Amino acid sequence: MEQDLTESPVPELEAPVEVLTPEEYVTTLVKRAKGAAGRLSSLPTAVKNQALEAMADGLEEHEAELLAENEKDLEQFEATPERKALGDRLRLTAERIQEMAAGIRDIARLPDPLGDTPKMWTRPNGMQVGRMRVPIGVIGIIYEARPNVTADSAALCLKSGNVCILRGGSEALHSNVAIARVLSESAEKAGVPAGAITFVDRAEREVVQLLLKQDRYIDLIIPRGGESLMKTIAEHATIPVLKHDKGVCHTYVDVDADPEVAERICLNAKVQRPSTCNAMETLLVHHSIARTWLPLLVEKLTAAKVDVRGCAKTCQLCPEVTPAADDDFGREFLDLVLAIKVVKNMDEALEHIATYGSQHTEAIVTKDYARAMRFLREVDAGAVLVNASTRLNDGYQFGLGAEIGISTSRLHARGPMGLEELTCSKFVVLGSGQIRE
Amino acid sequence: MEQDLTESPVPELEAPVEVLTPEEYVTTLVKRAKGAAGRLSSLPTAVKNQALEAMADGLEEHEAELLAENEKDLEQFEATPERKALGDRLRLTAERIQEMAAGIRDIARLPDPLGDTPKMWTRPNGMQVGRMRVPIGVIGIIYEARPNVTADSAALCLKSGNVCILRGGSEALHSNVAIARVLSESAEKAGVPAGAITFVDRAEREVVQLLLKQDRYIDLIIPRGGESLMKTIAEHATIPVLKHDKGVCHTYVDVDADPEVAERICLNAKVQRPSTCNAMETLLVHHSIARTWLPLLVEKLTAAKVDVRGCAKTCQLCPEVTPAADDDFGREFLDLVLAIKVVKNMDEALEHIATYGSQHTEAIVTKDYARAMRFLREVDAGAVLVNASTRLNDGYQFGLGAEIGISTSRLHARGPMGLEELTCSKFVVLGSGQIRE
Repeated sequence: MEQDLTESPVPELEAPVEVLTPEEYVTTLVKRAKGAAGRLSSLPTAVKNQALEAMADGLEEHEAELLAENEKDLEQFEATPERKALGDRLRLTAERIQEMAAGIRDIARLPDPLGDTPKMWTRPNGMQVGRMRVPIGVIGIIYEARPNVTADSAALCLKSGNVCILRGGSEALHSNVAIARVLSESAEKAGVPAGAITFVDRAEREVVQLLLKQDRYIDLIIPRGGESLMKTIAEHATIPVLKHDKGVCHTYVDVDADPEVAERICLNAKVQRPSTCNAMETLLVHHSIARTWLPLLVEKLTAAKVDVRGCAKTCQLCPEVTPAADDDFGREFLDLVLAIKVVKNMDEALEHIATYGSQHTEAIVTKDYARAMRFLREVDAGAVLVNASTRLNDGYQFGLGAEIGISTSRLHARGPMGLEELTCSKFVVLGSGQIRE
Repeated sequence: MEQDLTESPVPELEAPVEVLTPEEYVTTLVKRAKGAAGRLSSLPTAVKNQALEAMADGLEEHEAELLAENEKDLEQFEATPERKALGDRLRLTAERIQEMAAGIRDIARLPDPLGDTPKMWTRPNGMQVGRMRVPIGVIGIIYEARPNVTADSAALCLKSGNVCILRGGSEALHSNVAIARVLSESAEKAGVPAGAITFVDRAEREVVQLLLKQDRYIDLIIPRGGESLMKTIAEHATIPVLKHDKGVCHTYVDVDADPEVAERICLNAKVQRPSTCNAMETLLVHHSIARTWLPLLVEKLTAAKVDVRGCAKTCQLCPEVTPAADDDFGREFLDLVLAIKVVKNMDEALEHIATYGSQHTEAIVTKDYARAMRFLREVDAGAVLVNASTRLNDGYQFGLGAEIGISTSRLHARGPMGLEELTCSKFVVLGSGQIRE
C-alpha cells in the first residue's frame, strides 16, 4: 500500500482508499510523511525555490480544474444566511488562484531560515558554540474552510524544510484535494521527496483524532479554527500544539490621547476587516476624554454600520448606543459589533484587559510617555501596541514575511509565525579535543 | 483556606492539610500560584536579586534543620543495592547545602532576561517593532530524588519572573519541604509575593495527575525523571511540556581521527560521570582505524572498570570484550557500560545514530573538514559536537549560566535550558498613529 501511495501521493477522490480502515489510512500517511522528513531537511535552497516556482505555475496552469473542483464544494455547501461568510471564504476565483500563486512566489523569494546560526561564541576552553536553525520535522496543520490555507501552509512548510500533513475542512474537500495534488505533483517533479506535502483526503472526524495521537511521526500540530476544533485538540492531542485561537482585542484611549489619532486608530481597528482575530472587539475610554471624544467616534462607527454596545456611562454620553450585555465584554464578535466601556483610569483599563482579554493583541492610544511605557510593560499579550491599530499585528506588517497564522500559545512562538518560527534549533560545537574537566 | 495558606505558604508536615481532598488541595495551590504571577513578573531585578541572596543565606542558616529533615528521608529510604545511586543523590551534607547556596548566588549574578529586546526594526510605515522577553508564567516542575533540584529550580524560576510549582520525589519529601519552606519564607521577607515558590507537599500520585490538567493555571510542565514519570505525563498532561528525557549519546570516531584526541574524548565521554544523560552510551568506530586504535582504547576502558560490550568485529579485534546483545545498542546504561560498533563508513554511522540515538547529544572525532561539516549538518540532535566530549553538552559549559536541565523537546528550547529559555516573548510596537491600509 505504501508503494502505491508513493507513486500517486494524493489518491483520487473518485477512487478513494476507503478500503483502508481509518487507523491503516492514518498510519500509512504519517509513515510516508516521516520518511520524507530526512531528505527534505537537507534539500538545497535552490531546489526548494524551484519547487515553489513550479507549485505556483502549477496552480495557474490548472486553474480550470481547480475552479471545477471548487464548484463541487460550493454545490454541496448549505448556504444558510449565518453561513454566508463561510461560503465567501470557500469560493475560489481566477483572482484568488493568482493570489495563491503570487503568495507562493513571495515565499520562494524569502531567505531560507535553515542553517542560520546567528552567532557563535568561544568558551574559555576554546570550543565554539552556537545555535543552528533546523526544521521542526513533520507538522500537522488542521484548519477550516479557506482553500488558500492549503497553498500557504504547504509553501511555508516546504521552504522551512518541514513536511506538512494538511487537513482542511470537509466543506472544502474537493478544492483542497485538487490544490494539494497540483502542489505536491509540481514539487515532486522539481525534486521534493514524495510525502513532503501530504493531504488528508478523508473527511471522517475519527481521522483527525487518530492524527492527534501520532506523536512518533508528527512533531507539531498547528490548529487554525473555532472552538470545537480547539476542544478536539485539547482532548486528543499527544503532540505539542501551537494554537491559533481567538482574539479578544482591546484599544485603550487614554486621557492624553490625540483625539484625531485615537479616532483613526479605533475606526481602523474595528472597521477595516472585522472578521479577523486582530480586529478590536472592545474599546476602553478614559472618562475625561470620553465626554467630548466618544460621541463623535460613535457617530462615525454608526455611519460605518457598526453595532455599538456600551456600558451605562457610554449610553449616557451617546443615547443612541444599545446597552451592552454582560457577556459583550470579553466576546469575540468577528463582525461589525463593538463593546465600549468608559473607565475611570488606566488601572481599570489594565484590569479589564487582564480579565477579559485573550492575550492576543492590545493597544493604547496616548501622548503620555510614562503611561505608554507602563502599558507596554504590564500588558500580557502576543502583541502590545502604542499608538497603532490592532490590525497591524500580522506577519507581513511586522516584516516577518508570510505567516502561517498568529499563535496564541506562549511557548516557542507567540504572535505572528513566519518561516523562522517554523524552525527549531540545535546546538553546534566546533571543538579541538575539549573534554569535561 | 486560601487565607491560611497565604500566611503559612508551606504547611507543616506535622499538621498536614489532608483535610482537603486532592482536588481541593491542588485547586488551592494553583490558584495561589497563578495569583502571584502578575506581581512577580514586574518585580524589579534588584528585589529579585536580594531575594535570591536571602534564600542562599536562609539555606545556610537552617543547615541543622535541613540535615535533620534529610535524616528522616534517609531513615525511611530502603537502601537496596540497586538503589544505592538513588540513596547517594538523596543525601544532604553541609557541603551540598553550601553548594545549593552558592548556586543560588550565581543565579543572582546572572543578567535578568526579562525586558530584553534584542532588536527593534522600523517598518516602511514608520512603526518600530521588536520582541521583548517576558516570563512564561507558572511553571510546574516534577522531578525525582535530588533535593538540590528544589533550590536550583526555585532560583531559576524566580530570576526569570516565573512562579514555580515544585513537586519532588516522595523519597525526598521531608528534605524538599524543608528546603522549599526556607526558600519561600526568605524570598517573601525580601518582597517576593506569597505563592511564587510553591511546593507540593502531598505525596499522592493523584496529586500529580491533577496538576497535569491545570491548564488554566499552569503554563508549562518540566518533568525531570525516568520512563514511568514520562509515561504519566504523556497520559495526563493538558499543559505544554518540555521534556528532560533520556540521552542515548554516540561518539563516532572517523577514519581520519587523531588517535590521541579520540582516546581522550571517548574516555571522558564514558568515564567522567557515567550516570548523566550526556555520557556516551555507544561508540561507533570506522573499521580502518579500529584495527590499531580500538584495542588500546578498550584496554584503558577496562582499566577504568568499564563493562565493554562489542559487535562481532569489535570482539574479533579485542577478544576480552563481551559480545553485545541486540538491545545494548540504543540503550541508556547510565553506568560504566559501553556498547561498541565498528562501522564500514560514515554513512553507516549516521544511519546507526538516526536509528538508535535519542537526539540528545552526538559527537564526531575527525580531522577531515568535509566529514566534520556533514556530521554537523546531517545529525539531528539537541547538540552536535565536532572533536569534543558529549559531556560538554551542558548549560554552564556552553556559557548559558545555570540550567534547569537539558530539554529533549524540539519546540521552544532544545538542549540546555538556561534563564533565557525560561522566558517567552511578546511583540512590542512603538507607533505614531499607524493603521492598516
